[in-house]
Amino acid sequence: MLYPTPVAKLIESFSKLPGIGIKTATRLAFHTLSMSDEDVNDFAKNLLSAKRELTYCTICGNLTDQDPCAICQDETRDDQVLLIVESSKDVSAMEKLNEYRGRYHVLHGLISPMNGVGPDDINLKTLVTRLMDSEVSEVILATSATADGEATAMYISRILKPAGIKVTRLARGLAVGSDIEYADEVTLLRAIENRTEL
Amino acid sequence: MLYPTPVAKLIESFSKLPGIGIKTATRLAFHTLSMSDEDVNDFAKNLLSAKRELTYCTICGNLTDQDPCAICQDETRDDQVLLIVESSKDVSAMEKLNEYRGRYHVLHGLISPMNGVGPDDINLKTLVTRLMDSEVSEVILATSATADGEATAMYISRILKPAGIKVTRLARGLAVGSDIEYADEVTLLRAIENRTEL
Repeated sequence: MLYPTPVAKLIESFSKLPGIGIKTATRLAFHTLSMSDEDVNDFAKNLLSAKRELTYCTICGNLTDQDPCAICQDETRDDQVLLIVESSKDVSAMEKLNEYRGRYHVLHGLISPMNGVGPDDINLKTLVTRLMDSEVSEVILATSATADGEATAMYISRILKPAGIKVTRLARGLAVGSDIEYADEVTLLRAIENRTEL
Repeated sequence: MLYPTPVAKLIESFSKLPGIGIKTATRLAFHTLSMSDEDVNDFAKNLLSAKRELTYCTICGNLTDQDPCAICQDETRDDQVLLIVESSKDVSAMEKLNEYRGRYHVLHGLISPMNGVGPDDINLKTLVTRLMDSEVSEVILATSATADGEATAMYISRILKPAGIKVTRLARGLAVGSDIEYADEVTLLRAIENRTEL
């Protein structure tokens, strides 16, 4: 006998989370035992309601507790610009800036031939349907600056360009606050190519 | 609006756990959303039942789902040896060895003058009551080799020695597999002092 069954089960649940091994899971489980009843009840309730109440917006694919999501329902948003991201977390990152006022489209993944993920495996079909008869004049590709992110961006731009839609992507360059000395070569090359006039 | 309320609440719950900041909490919350319904339900159930069904053994103070705990109830255990540890996790560490067959006493903390924790704040009173009229002939102090662990061990040994009970503590020395070059000075000194004959 190592731990009483209820502790062992809780440790097992924690250890199923990403990046949490058996030692951390044990620490978290024991911490839970020392938490107030209220906090533990809230935790359990939040787990269940997050799973139960959340769904994906049928228009943009963003995670939401109402369909269509708050952003798609917001009439003050600019219908002419559509920003394409990999996940709902990226929508939040953009929204935090309080700068972008257009619409979103969430792909839920990136095209990744290495991992067997093709164009049909991500939320692309609804993007095409959505763009027909829409006012969108510019699509901003905000996928990650990784191999999969670039492949996905290239694929989407190849589909959309013939339709006469302006397709742009986020700038590549030095991260603000970063040191040229430590920048990798590819980033430095892009930063020189895309230099801007002062 | 950053995240729908159910996600925001779940992130908050995760971020209350020790060592989990807002970024990790967000990652864990989003992972939860992609888990199966069954796994999430189990997680919530395990949280609640761990909190509800677990209690501390009235004899040894160990975490248990039955009182007295399985170890205190086990009649094959040696009543003459009592091993004193800081927490239930230490009991598990000892039990994993499958070597020790005596009884335990869990302190739930260590005497720590720096943090205002005195002898009355840990599970010591029941230890003294327990030792009266008991068959215990040896008490093994297995508190950590830290300042607080040593202080607690010294305090307990000073109480028990006048009662004629043999008090021992775990050996200090080089960790097995460790390099003398990297051993700290105090450990090396203890290792020389406590050298054993081959």
